[in-house]
Order: sequence, then C-alpha cells, then structure tokens
Amino acid sequence: MHNFGLTERIARVDWSGIRKMHSMASQLDGVINLGIGQPDFDTPVHIIDAAKQALDDGYTRYPPAQGFLDVRQAVAEKLSRQNGIIADPETEIMITVGAMQVVFNTMLNFIEPGDEVIVMDPGYDYFSQIKLFRGVPVSVPLKEENGFRLDPADLRAALTDKTKLLVINSPSNPTGAVFDRALMQEIADIAIEHDLLVFSDEPYEDLMFDGREHVSIATLDGMKERTITAFTLSKTYAMTGWRVGYAVGPETVIAEMEKLMEHLVSGVTAVSQRAALAAIAGPQGCVDEMNAAYARRREIIYDGLNDIKGVSCIKPESTFYAFPNIKAVGKSSWDLAEYLLHDQRVITIPGPIFGDQGEGYLRLSFAVEDAELKEAIARIKTGIEKLTA
Amino acid sequence: MHNFGLTERIARVDWSGIRKMHSMASQLDGVINLGIGQPDFDTPVHIIDAAKQALDDGYTRYPPAQGFLDVRQAVAEKLSRQNGIIADPETEIMITVGAMQVVFNTMLNFIEPGDEVIVMDPGYDYFSQIKLFRGVPVSVPLKEENGFRLDPADLRAALTDKTKLLVINSPSNPTGAVFDRALMQEIADIAIEHDLLVFSDEPYEDLMFDGREHVSIATLDGMKERTITAFTLSKTYAMTGWRVGYAVGPETVIAEMEKLMEHLVSGVTAVSQRAALAAIAGPQGCVDEMNAAYARRREIIYDGLNDIKGVSCIKPESTFYAFPNIKAVGKSSWDLAEYLLHDQRVITIPGPIFGDQGEGYLRLSFAVEDAELKEAIARIKTGIEKLTA
Repeated sequence: MHNFGLTERIARVDWSGIRKMHSMASQLDGVINLGIGQPDFDTPVHIIDAAKQALDDGYTRYPPAQGFLDVRQAVAEKLSRQNGIIADPETEIMITVGAMQVVFNTMLNFIEPGDEVIVMDPGYDYFSQIKLFRGVPVSVPLKEENGFRLDPADLRAALTDKTKLLVINSPSNPTGAVFDRALMQEIADIAIEHDLLVFSDEPYEDLMFDGREHVSIATLDGMKERTITAFTLSKTYAMTGWRVGYAVGPETVIAEMEKLMEHLVSGVTAVSQRAALAAIAGPQGCVDEMNAAYARRREIIYDGLNDIKGVSCIKPESTFYAFPNIKAVGKSSWDLAEYLLHDQRVITIPGPIFGDQGEGYLRLSFAVEDAELKEAIARIKTGIEKLTA
Repeated sequence: MHNFGLTERIARVDWSGIRKMHSMASQLDGVINLGIGQPDFDTPVHIIDAAKQALDDGYTRYPPAQGFLDVRQAVAEKLSRQNGIIADPETEIMITVGAMQVVFNTMLNFIEPGDEVIVMDPGYDYFSQIKLFRGVPVSVPLKEENGFRLDPADLRAALTDKTKLLVINSPSNPTGAVFDRALMQEIADIAIEHDLLVFSDEPYEDLMFDGREHVSIATLDGMKERTITAFTLSKTYAMTGWRVGYAVGPETVIAEMEKLMEHLVSGVTAVSQRAALAAIAGPQGCVDEMNAAYARRREIIYDGLNDIKGVSCIKPESTFYAFPNIKAVGKSSWDLAEYLLHDQRVITIPGPIFGDQGEGYLRLSFAVEDAELKEAIARIKTGIEKLTA
C-alpha cells in the first residue's frame, strides 16, 4: 500500500514493549497476566453512583478545555492537604486525559530537536514522547544495590549544556522505589543550580507501604515555578478506563496545555471529570481497602520470588510492582519473559523496556487476586527451576 | 516568570477564535449564545441508560488503544449501511477522542515541515494543527455565489509539488454547504491524478436537510486507499461531552494512530465507547427528532436574517449553522460580532476565524431553542438596524 509519506517523526516511535508482550500472549489460553499496570478492582461504587447521577444531571456536553472549575477546586484542596502543593485552581491546575496526556503535552510544549531529557534507568518508558519531538533521552542509572534510588552524583554526571528537562517518577514504575525527602532535596538543589525544568510523574503517590512518605518535589523551596507534576485517578481509585488525571504547574504552562487541549482532543470526558470529583472529594476508605490488599500481596510476591533459585527481589516500597533480579537464571530478560509465557503461561514484562539497566530484571504486577498471584508465582518457580536446577 | 523555553512549535498555535469570543462574553449577563457548535439537546435517554449499565458491568478499566472490538464492529456495520464504506473493524477502524483527535493525529502522522495542506476558505479552522507541525495551509476560496461549493478549477490552481494533503469538510462548518456526488467525483479525480492524501472530516453527515445526500469521498473509486475519514458521535447524538468518535482509513494509517494513541492519551474513555455502541447500534428515532427541530429552526433563522436590512443569508443545506453575509452593514466581522455582543448580548462568531474569505460573514448556530433563537434574531435585527437605518 502507498504510505503517503508517514512522517520521520512517528517512525522514531515504537509500539510500547508492554503491548508487544500482550500481543504474544493474545494467542494463548489460560494465561495469568502479571504484565498490566492496572488495579484488579472495580471502580468503587460511590464513584460509579456519582457518575450515573452526573449523567442524569446533564453532564453530557463539552466541558471547558481546562476542566470543570469545581473539579479543579477539589484538586487544589487535595493538593494542599495531601501533597503540600498550593496551587490556584483558576490558573495552575488542569484536568487531563490521565497522566499520559501530561507526558505528551510536556514534550510537545518544551522539547525542541536536540534538547536532552534526563530519565531514570530503569524507569517508566518516556522515550516515545521524547523522541517524537526529536528530544534526546539521557539515562541516569539507578542501581539495585542502592535500592534503585538515584545517586545525585550520577545525575550531575548526566548534565550537559543541552539538558532541558529532568523527568522523575517517585514512586517508581517499575522498581517500586521511593525517593525520600533528603534525596528529593538533593535533586531540587541540582535542578535550581542548573536552572532545569522538572517533570514529576506521580501516579502511585497513594500506594505507599510501611508508612513511607510521598514527597512531591514541587513542594520544595524554589521548585514550584520549575515543576510540572502529573497525577492520575487511575491507580488510586481503580479508574484506568475513565481516562482522567490532572496537572499542576506554572500558569504559563497550564495556559499552553489548555490552548493545545482545544486542538488535541478538545477536553476530558465530562462524566469522567464528575467521577473524579466524587473520588477526590469523597470518602477515602476504598483507597485504604485496596492498599491493604496490595500490601498483603506484596508479602506474597516478595516471599515467593525470593524462594525461587536464581531469583532475588528487593521489597517494593510502593506501587504494585515487583522488579526481581533474574541474572542468575542465565537468560536475557526478553528470553525469560517469552519462555515463561510459552512454558508457564504467565505474562511478565522484560526489564529492558524500562531502559538498558533493566536487563536482568522482570517487572511483575501484583494487582491480581491473591490465589491467582500464588498460582502465577508457583508457575514461575516451576519454569525457572527447570532452568536453574 | 521563567518560561523555560516553550517551543517555537506551540507559539505558532493560536487560541481558537471561538474561545476568544466566549472569553469576551463570560463577563456579561443575559447573553444568548449562537456561538457554540453544540446540540442544545441532552444525550438521548437510551444512550445514558446503556452507559449506566456499562458502569455496572465493570467497563471502568483500560480499553484497547484501538477501541473495543464490538464497537469497531458496530462502526463497520454503520459505515457499510449508511456511508457505503466497507472497512475491516480489525485493521481499518479506530475509536478516537472525537473527530478532533483524528485531525491532530493526521497532521502528526503526515505533515513534515513545508508540506502544503489544502483547506477550504471559509472552512473549519484546521490551521492550528497544520501549523503545529510546520505544515503550510493553502486556502482554496469558496464563493457565496457558488453556494460555498468548491470550484474544481480553484483546487487545481492551488496544487503545487509540495501539496501533501487535501482537507475537505462536507457538510461544511461554518457554511452549511454540501458537496454533492458530482463535485466529490471531480475532487476524487484530482486527488488520484495528483496522488494526494485526503482527510475528510464528516461530523455533520446526519444533519442533512431537504433529503440531500451525504457523500463520503472514501466510497468513490480509488479513494479508500488514500482517504482518512473522521466521524464523531458529538453532533448526531448530542454527545459532545463524551469525547468519542472514530476514524476509518488505510490499515497503515490506523496502525500508526493506534501506536500513537498509547503515547498520547492511552485510549478513549471506556464508558464513552459503550455509550457510542448504544447510539450507533440502537434506535435512530432520536436523531430524526433532533433533526426535525434543526429543520424548523433553519426556517426561523433563514427568514429572520433575510428580514434584516443589510444582511443576506443563503439557506444552509446541512449542519446547524447559518453563515449570513453582513458586508452591507459596514463593519468588519470582528467589529460587528463585538458590537452585537456588547450592544445586544448575542454571541456570534466572526467569519474570518474560518479563513480570509470569511470576512464579511458571521457564523450563527441554530442549535438553540426556538424561542431563544427568535429572541436572538430580534436582538441582532435591532442592533444591526441601528447601524443601517
């Protein structure tokens, strides 16, 4: 077929690696999926009920491009109470199509060809959005022996006069690591010293274990004016399918996001915004309940993985991901993931999807029911011990 | 504030002109809005009910990036039955965030710097998306004396060796003109002769008056493989706030849209897709009822405008827009729109938002209740006759 000259721009973008694993799996029966980053819970009933009420109340028309004001006000109240971010709902907050749109918009708004964007490795895959606009991803290694936390010296070493943007994601998908306040302060000091813009992606802020503190870098002195922070309802409230999140950032940035929204997708689904309002402003017991399940499953997967010969796994401090080291198994991450899929019918995600430093690791989601999780771990054990016995 | 180097790319993009008029109006009370392109009806109850049922059925999780297969199958069935487009739901159809995302994606996917994109003038404002990717909009004039239909000679005159894409929008927002089958065939002949890609934006396909035929250019011989067609649920089913539409195009194009979707907004809100399924596959009586109201209002606005000294208006063949000629009033379109807003509290849209040829015209939506529409026209008459008396 004639391709009518698809742009060089989109040829730089790959299908997501997670998608590739799922495509392979779609041919097989009886597969247990530890690959997808999605709560296994339904959206809580009081949020569903609020959505139904909103439909009866006529929320079926164009929303404002920036999002409904009352939703932004509820977000401002939550940011103040929970994150310590003081933001004006009129000018500094925008409702978005999940956190993903904020990633896309940030690169669209800021990345010129050749601009360097610092990302964590292993870390969430921001490569596509960066490369779409001809930015250059510069990876900073995170080491397992350091609990997958950043060594500020490594960040300093990665800076050049082309560095435009620093992307952080704490709690981290895929490692489950949390950057604590002291580390965030060191990062902030570097950002200010080098006049960097920071994009902080915080989808897992509410899934903290052992009473750990989530620190939004925008709250540190001198950071608010240089930080765009992305949040989503997807993980905290099991609302992945609603496609709703929000961004907080400097007025100029939010105004540009709003301007582009009109030309991109026009706005965020009205009923999803009303559901978001119910979630943010409503009772939070549902979050505690889901988090208790994730905490229980964290123990299951941590104990289970460390009981497999050739596998070791540090304990995730947050998120619903384990990131086991499989180097002693003697297969590459992709080979092992494909082997486990075909031999044991378990979907796992190869670490290199999250950067070169991810080689030798797999990402496993434990957002699955306890019994299914146990069965998956038993299968992985069987499969791997055939190789390592 | 430090602007951290927003890209040159987004500086090329303007706020939408429609937004500018609404910002002016937001300071005033008692305004009648003929500015917004939105049905004044609520989404029909059977569609709302289907959405509620979908929420109870657990449609709160990530949808596939291409859209649910059963929704694509219903779209394929509708395209075949209604448009005469035969498309494979597996590979040639994609569910999108309204038609707007298709506009954005088409430019993202195809426009390299310097590529020329032919647009109709007056015509819908695709300038922002074209300029975002450094494309060059090339306007083809549509003349009132020709019923705002394209003269194929004008299209031929606009072609250069840099022409990449031809954008058509029949029925037309803002003129209400319809390109009939003979004209579509002439356009198709030119597209094939010059090996052009065509983007056909068809949001108003169902709002045809006087039994006029809507012709999708993709159905003409040799056109399917070179045409991307955008549809939306927004106008036909009063579903603007759900943000759901669909694209049909060559397999390569749909695959690229799907790939980019994962990095852009991940997918279309699940419940909106289920509502779309109910709309497309359900009873169509609601569409007939809404269209009967638009037909009645068309007579009101047509008679009313032509009864104003200094104003003449051809009869819209489709859509819910009238595009009166106000050249004899002696004010520019922007000046008259601002005057009518401040003097008479009626929002109208200045024609130049839709291209240079729009100077001397206003766009008025008649998707408002009959009584309110009559009141708005009375106010416009009062305001204009103060100037022309």
